[in-house]
Amino acid sequence: MNKIVQCVPNFSEGRDPKKVDRIVEPFRGKQGVKLLDYSSDEDHNRTVVTLVGEPDPLKEAVIEAMGIATEEIDMTKHEGQHPRMGATDVVPFIPIKNVTMDEAIELSKEVAKAVNEKYDLPIFLYEKSATAPHRQNLAKVRKGQFEAMEEKVQEEDWEPDFGGKKIHPTAGITAVGARMPLVAFNVNLDTDDIDFANQIAKNVRHLSGGFRYCKGIGIELKDRGIVQVSMNMTDFTKTALYRVFELIKIEAKRYGVNVVGSEIIGLLPMEALIDTAVYYLGVEDFSMDQVLEQRIME
Amino acid sequence: MNKIVQCVPNFSEGRDPKKVDRIVEPFRGKQGVKLLDYSSDEDHNRTVVTLVGEPDPLKEAVIEAMGIATEEIDMTKHEGQHPRMGATDVVPFIPIKNVTMDEAIELSKEVAKAVNEKYDLPIFLYEKSATAPHRQNLAKVRKGQFEAMEEKVQEEDWEPDFGGKKIHPTAGITAVGARMPLVAFNVNLDTDDIDFANQIAKNVRHLSGGFRYCKGIGIELKDRGIVQVSMNMTDFTKTALYRVFELIKIEAKRYGVNVVGSEIIGLLPMEALIDTAVYYLGVEDFSMDQVLEQRIME
Repeated sequence: MNKIVQCVPNFSEGRDPKKVDRIVEPFRGKQGVKLLDYSSDEDHNRTVVTLVGEPDPLKEAVIEAMGIATEEIDMTKHEGQHPRMGATDVVPFIPIKNVTMDEAIELSKEVAKAVNEKYDLPIFLYEKSATAPHRQNLAKVRKGQFEAMEEKVQEEDWEPDFGGKKIHPTAGITAVGARMPLVAFNVNLDTDDIDFANQIAKNVRHLSGGFRYCKGIGIELKDRGIVQVSMNMTDFTKTALYRVFELIKIEAKRYGVNVVGSEIIGLLPMEALIDTAVYYLGVEDFSMDQVLEQRIME
Repeated sequence: MNKIVQCVPNFSEGRDPKKVDRIVEPFRGKQGVKLLDYSSDEDHNRTVVTLVGEPDPLKEAVIEAMGIATEEIDMTKHEGQHPRMGATDVVPFIPIKNVTMDEAIELSKEVAKAVNEKYDLPIFLYEKSATAPHRQNLAKVRKGQFEAMEEKVQEEDWEPDFGGKKIHPTAGITAVGARMPLVAFNVNLDTDDIDFANQIAKNVRHLSGGFRYCKGIGIELKDRGIVQVSMNMTDFTKTALYRVFELIKIEAKRYGVNVVGSEIIGLLPMEALIDTAVYYLGVEDFSMDQVLEQRIME
């Protein structure tokens, strides 16, 4: 694969394995598409699929799967803990290799147009593909969820980007867009006081004055008797992992607590960690082209 | 490519681009073989090729290139600064992905046997493929160079592993073996006194009591007015980069000098740096399977 895009479609079905199987079927055994992972959550009643592939075959496979999800899932009967607004709830495209963000945006728009034409499914473009600033944030786009969407799309501000002022009667509406790879990075503190984690999360996250590409909250790890600054790094190429890690150490010192470790949840691109190593070792003039796997994948 | 082996054959021709072209020709456009890099040095009169590939196609391509080098290069007329004993001087195989060291050793022996049969080229097995401890180290195997080899192979200790007590009249003799990936890692000190670099090199290298998989010498970077601990990390999975880096910082402190940076020369596997990042961030329970590129290459 010369150009690689990642796609992480979320489908609103996590309880019926047969339905899930039918939905992910288009991702199996396709030239140029690789199904890396899919996991269903019964409480959320949702399946998150992780794919990589070349742009064109990936696009075709995603369109096909969205058609199956449109047939298989009836949102009027859906219940689950996770917020959702459509049978295919959200479809982010992430540039990984030899692909620009502009190309990923273009790809998301092609998928949006195609599924609207084929399945009469209305689409919000979100994140980098959003057509207005208030549509970038998925939580805002999805606010009200499936049950409120028929009304929401009547509002001037929330007319879908494809499909007019209506939703699909059973499949609802889907958010499609392009974004940077997201790294789920949590830093553990040697205290059981959640206030410290919350305060430090505030110091480092964008919302309250911290790093632009960092979202964060404090959470308790009750079984271990410690707390954690739980973060989503939304663009590690601009807000580096080591930078937020070192700042958390500095802030923790102020409260007399210590960083005792960290966690990375799920997948991340090698560059996020290689960049970290290059910082700590003070490597001069390093290039990703020195990484064997980078060269092998070229 | 499911299984990936790296091979870094060194050929004793670095001045005639046409000859070099003919030698590397078997590495081009072959299914399952990828020519990552080749560079010729006129002073050394030597070309170093970096390849990756699946074991079988890689083997066939290397055998073919060794045949061409045997025809093209006349060692009786070869001169250059780098120590050498054969037209194809040394051929290391390095396990990269889904390949064990035992498989890489087996591959090196198959190549050794084949080129001996095809081209009547005698072979020393070296490094992990060596048939005796005194044959592991390439410098010892090659000692005396091409000019002394005809005599050397008469000795009991130095009978070639393939080909009997003789050398090829024009192509000499070749070392073939398997080894771990080697990382060329240099650490810079803020002093122009070479003694400090030499002393610290002694502290960290295996030869004089340091880490088992670390070779090192002090060198001067005259244009920058600083010195460097220049190292070859011969198995980063057992002697980690961060460990030797932190020890150099500790030793430097003793002399009142500081580490001011480092260099990585050439290619290295991503794991060497990811392991380093995981150490500095204190990441708990990290698995290489969380690295997107690792999963893509699977």
